Amino acid sequence: MELSFTKMHGTGNDFIMVNGSNYPDLDFSKLARQLCRRHFSIGADGLIIVLPPESVEHDFRMRIFNADGSEAEMCGNGIRCFAHYLRENNLTTRDVLKIETLAGIITPEIVSYNGDKSLIKVNMGRPHFKSEEIPVNIEDELDYVKNFPLKIGNKKLNINCVSMGNPHTIIFVEDVNQIPVSTWGQEIEHNPLFPQKTNVEFIQIQSEDEIIMRVWERGSGITLACGTGACASVVAGIKNGLLKNMVTVHLPGGDLNIEWQEQDVFMTGPAESVYTGKIVIQEG
Amino acid sequence: MELSFTKMHGTGNDFIMVNGSNYPDLDFSKLARQLCRRHFSIGADGLIIVLPPESVEHDFRMRIFNADGSEAEMCGNGIRCFAHYLRENNLTTRDVLKIETLAGIITPEIVSYNGDKSLIKVNMGRPHFKSEEIPVNIEDELDYVKNFPLKIGNKKLNINCVSMGNPHTIIFVEDVNQIPVSTWGQEIEHNPLFPQKTNVEFIQIQSEDEIIMRVWERGSGITLACGTGACASVVAGIKNGLLKNMVTVHLPGGDLNIEWQEQDVFMTGPAESVYTGKIVIQEG
Repeated sequence: MELSFTKMHGTGNDFIMVNGSNYPDLDFSKLARQLCRRHFSIGADGLIIVLPPESVEHDFRMRIFNADGSEAEMCGNGIRCFAHYLRENNLTTRDVLKIETLAGIITPEIVSYNGDKSLIKVNMGRPHFKSEEIPVNIEDELDYVKNFPLKIGNKKLNINCVSMGNPHTIIFVEDVNQIPVSTWGQEIEHNPLFPQKTNVEFIQIQSEDEIIMRVWERGSGITLACGTGACASVVAGIKNGLLKNMVTVHLPGGDLNIEWQEQDVFMTGPAESVYTGKIVIQEG
Repeated sequence: MELSFTKMHGTGNDFIMVNGSNYPDLDFSKLARQLCRRHFSIGADGLIIVLPPESVEHDFRMRIFNADGSEAEMCGNGIRCFAHYLRENNLTTRDVLKIETLAGIITPEIVSYNGDKSLIKVNMGRPHFKSEEIPVNIEDELDYVKNFPLKIGNKKLNINCVSMGNPHTIIFVEDVNQIPVSTWGQEIEHNPLFPQKTNVEFIQIQSEDEIIMRVWERGSGITLACGTGACASVVAGIKNGLLKNMVTVHLPGGDLNIEWQEQDVFMTGPAESVYTGKIVIQEG
């Protein structure tokens, strides 16, 4: 059978978007493994399925599958693409959408729409700081792990820890381009301080409302962008008195705007359509 | 404007195929840089343009651009995709095609065609063996650099050198999966023995007509498949009395069949259509 899809990306995190209503009988996990394979198939970080909501109180339901076929709960870059897809394909006229995900109801807001590109604002939830919530394996529990000394090789780093539902370790540096992200990231991810491992962000502060970030993602390595990492980094910067509460984060894959008013963190970023395609797939 | 394309691959080497006659005013080098970018655009190893021939004695003309926008002379995996594209799109009914390339006239033969997949046979030209032709930088010129000792770290390897228009260093090993291809490949590529550097092939012989190959490509690193590398490796195996003159080569991206009767080398391998797409591009 022939499957129609749209290829999109949010700050370089790329997705195959499929209207699931048209393909009720497909095994989406298997489809993700087939289609996400670079060089041999379409190639993408994940497959996003657009579905009608299970409750009439909501607008749509999103399912998102990683390239290995596993189903993800949510993805900040993915849900921006989801909202853009709905608008671009005239599936909604609303600006604020209630989307069912495995992480609960997410309400992306289409801030601006411009044909093949949107700016979307997403509530990313509240940060957590307590060492046991991250979790960080230290004897005396801390309300916030701030400028905590960590030795990497013969280098002493000061780490800050924030959870956005997943653990982040933030390190403020003079010049992110001088940092061996791969070596240090790997070492910190697997440090016994972090029983559930950790994502690692290296942050260069340009001004009170602008930072440059390079990220090592837990289990993935260096990536072009990490939404929860951008949130956690800005929150740590604000807590440490280095940043105002609305900050532009420059990532290798593009820019994200992060806002924190002491409760939920809001992330605003782009979602872009790249092309549409048709692929013949084998059923069953 | 909207550009129609087909995505294809030959043993994992993937290409964006465009019928150039429909887009006479495009800057294909710039287009390749835009469209080949993974994550942000279509993503591919190269862009192949299908054009009418400059001489009435030939069937078509192929131009092939690398992801960095540079124009390549020829590509064994690419020309198989080119021939398959012509057949799939009903642009030819011939089985043997005369294709103009920057490396001269190449005559791919469609051995079998099965909808979205073809088997294509390509004349890859003659191998060269003289040390100065490879080139290999040794004092006494050799007619064939055979089992020549090379020290890598504290390991002594025996290398064999063949040129297929580009330099190849072939090393026969017990078990290709035990070889640190990246470390050794890099070191051999840059060894002062090779003034123009070299591709490196590690070959495990399974029988007289079957080998497993892992390849380090000069300037690219580990790749899924290298057509000239498969040819050079089989030729070295035949010269060394290890192989018959028709051999199946198992590469990470798929299988190639190589035939050598003391003159030209013939490579037979697959070309597959993956999907068709439409992308909006900015002109000029």
